Amino acid sequence: MAEEAAKGGEDEQVVNPWEVTAKDGGKIDYDKLIEKFGCQRLDESLVQRVERLTGRSAHVFLRRGVFFAHRDFNEILDVFERGEKFFLYTGRGPSSEALHLGHLVPFMFTKFLQDVFKVPLVIQLTDDEKCMWKNLTVEESKRLARENAKDIIACGFDITRTFIFSDFSYVGGAFYENMVKVAKCVTFNKVVGIFGFTNEDHIGKISFPPVQAVPSFSSSFPHLFSGKDNLRCLIPCAIDQDPYFRMTRDVAPRIGYQKPALIESSFFPALQGETGKMSASDPNSAIYVTDSSKDIKNKVNRYAFSGGQDSIENHRKYGANLEVDIPVKYLGFFLEDDAELDHIKKEYGAGRMLTGEVKKRLIAVLSELVERHRKARALVTDEVVDAFMAVRPLPYMFS
Amino acid sequence: MAEEAAKGGEDEQVVNPWEVTAKDGGKIDYDKLIEKFGCQRLDESLVQRVERLTGRSAHVFLRRGVFFAHRDFNEILDVFERGEKFFLYTGRGPSSEALHLGHLVPFMFTKFLQDVFKVPLVIQLTDDEKCMWKNLTVEESKRLARENAKDIIACGFDITRTFIFSDFSYVGGAFYENMVKVAKCVTFNKVVGIFGFTNEDHIGKISFPPVQAVPSFSSSFPHLFSGKDNLRCLIPCAIDQDPYFRMTRDVAPRIGYQKPALIESSFFPALQGETGKMSASDPNSAIYVTDSSKDIKNKVNRYAFSGGQDSIENHRKYGANLEVDIPVKYLGFFLEDDAELDHIKKEYGAGRMLTGEVKKRLIAVLSELVERHRKARALVTDEVVDAFMAVRPLPYMFS
Repeated sequence: MAEEAAKGGEDEQVVNPWEVTAKDGGKIDYDKLIEKFGCQRLDESLVQRVERLTGRSAHVFLRRGVFFAHRDFNEILDVFERGEKFFLYTGRGPSSEALHLGHLVPFMFTKFLQDVFKVPLVIQLTDDEKCMWKNLTVEESKRLARENAKDIIACGFDITRTFIFSDFSYVGGAFYENMVKVAKCVTFNKVVGIFGFTNEDHIGKISFPPVQAVPSFSSSFPHLFSGKDNLRCLIPCAIDQDPYFRMTRDVAPRIGYQKPALIESSFFPALQGETGKMSASDPNSAIYVTDSSKDIKNKVNRYAFSGGQDSIENHRKYGANLEVDIPVKYLGFFLEDDAELDHIKKEYGAGRMLTGEVKKRLIAVLSELVERHRKARALVTDEVVDAFMAVRPLPYMFS
Repeated sequence: MAEEAAKGGEDEQVVNPWEVTAKDGGKIDYDKLIEKFGCQRLDESLVQRVERLTGRSAHVFLRRGVFFAHRDFNEILDVFERGEKFFLYTGRGPSSEALHLGHLVPFMFTKFLQDVFKVPLVIQLTDDEKCMWKNLTVEESKRLARENAKDIIACGFDITRTFIFSDFSYVGGAFYENMVKVAKCVTFNKVVGIFGFTNEDHIGKISFPPVQAVPSFSSSFPHLFSGKDNLRCLIPCAIDQDPYFRMTRDVAPRIGYQKPALIESSFFPALQGETGKMSASDPNSAIYVTDSSKDIKNKVNRYAFSGGQDSIENHRKYGANLEVDIPVKYLGFFLEDDAELDHIKKEYGAGRMLTGEVKKRLIAVLSELVERHRKARALVTDEVVDAFMAVRPLPYMFS
């Protein structure tokens, strides 16, 4: 395990579950991250294999490299090819009321995986984590978990295959047994190496990694997987969560379980430019699912960092710098039409299309996405949340 | 908090939940322990107050100073005097199949407290702790918890006022919420100071103290105390458990709870002499509740350290040294008749009674105690264990 990852040298980039900082305020170097973490690049042949095995075209996030790294994803495809079963696990730390578009990325992709592989999915809401890291009350953390569950459900998950749980409501029983099994295998020095904890950190933080580890093991969900204690697990997540699962994969064989496989995304860039994750403290750094069309128009026009030139003359002459242009990056996430995206990139990069035109297209795409999300979320009543979070068997989860 | 207690200097006694070692292999200095831990001596006036308030004569363990120290026990008596409610909390780490007499001491005393104060009692079986410290499997720890529960129930607890739980079966919900609240208030450095953990200890150990802390808070048991979230708690335990509750008392006011009160016992001496607790690895160092009368006779005669002189002549001349004599110590725990005990001490100390005679009396006392326990335990079926461990309201717990 690449344990130096948690801290790194002074001029190194820092990527862990609580901090994402590029070197010298630049971009995150994902190649370096793959090397440091010891995961694999998700190459074109793997994307093609997904398409071949599922008979479906790959999700935009897959064919455009948003999900760019993996651990043993090929083995999950082997499992699927042999007609065997696996399950999906993803999650969210409920620290804020409203999600931004970056938060939706793993869930949109997880929905795709659930749809094409037709597999069960467990979604962990780490309200205990946020209670400890963000110093929220237990009650507020639990409330945020339920609010976030509504946004997650609005992404379209199949209730016959999806179990959503909050740690405060679900930790216990077989889940707690697995937490203890994991905790026995990890020293304090180890979590210092992996997560950068210090002696002054409270023991709640030090206790937490097993909580995020154990949903990787099917035996943590006896109501779902009783008798299938060693089902393989695939975790779609952003790559900042990799430390948890490096730890989990290290421990798994020592306690008789299979290592979870991972498929990992890059970070969704802030409106101001691609130098890390978005900042929760600056609402103008992100588009929220609660933003109105007017908010979206305003934010994109005012804050979305442009790769266009400083004058129309220069722009016509040199074209836009697509490498740093946020509207193009965002379209890369959310404009599904490959031909149109290629056209925009070509015209904009050649200076024939102006920033204003690209931003206008982006505003339309985001407004539609957010409006669709808003409508879907409005249908998610408390009863629907209760239904997704009920500890229940899912008899049709593999059909 | 006296945090140096965990390690102490090289020539100091060590008393923590996992190690009890006297200075230079001598006796535990309980006065020093009181001073170091910062608890109070349980003096004669407090014993008399118990008798006055309950109208019952004090338990042998109280009037002979087995329970010798306390924290805020006087406040619990104030609560009782005002006609208000409190609850009792004690526990056991289920690391072995059979209990020895020392294990019974806190339970015999807790039964007395339950009887005279007529209060509810929660008993925690820390199967998770033993799984981690003794490297038992989860299954074996859970099995031992149930076996130990049978011995505990055989001490005569009132099922209408007693809830027994194992951590593996009960951690979760309100209990887990309190664990997180406690964990947030305790740094790694703090647990190093209190418990002597090191950086090489696994995070299961570091995570555990909140598990033993939170039964002190009535809100951890919503099925029992719903709406009475700040009921006072009295913990009868051996003084080696004090570190857990120093920590708990430090944290309690910071999370809006009352500090638990404590009433703490000295250690039950090994047959070989009073230099610490008994050793689980040496079956001849203790009388077990599974020992036959023949075993008891053999162990007492062969191993019980005698304060008698090396020849009958010398014994008649100098008398027995009662300070080191184990048969007399054991009679002090289990011979209820004060007059008879005084008589034995006087005659034996003056050399008129021989070691053999004292041992004979002890064998009779222990055989009767163990036989009574064996009969009571035989009546504790799995159904009875299930009934005590059922998560249920106790509507008559205060009547």
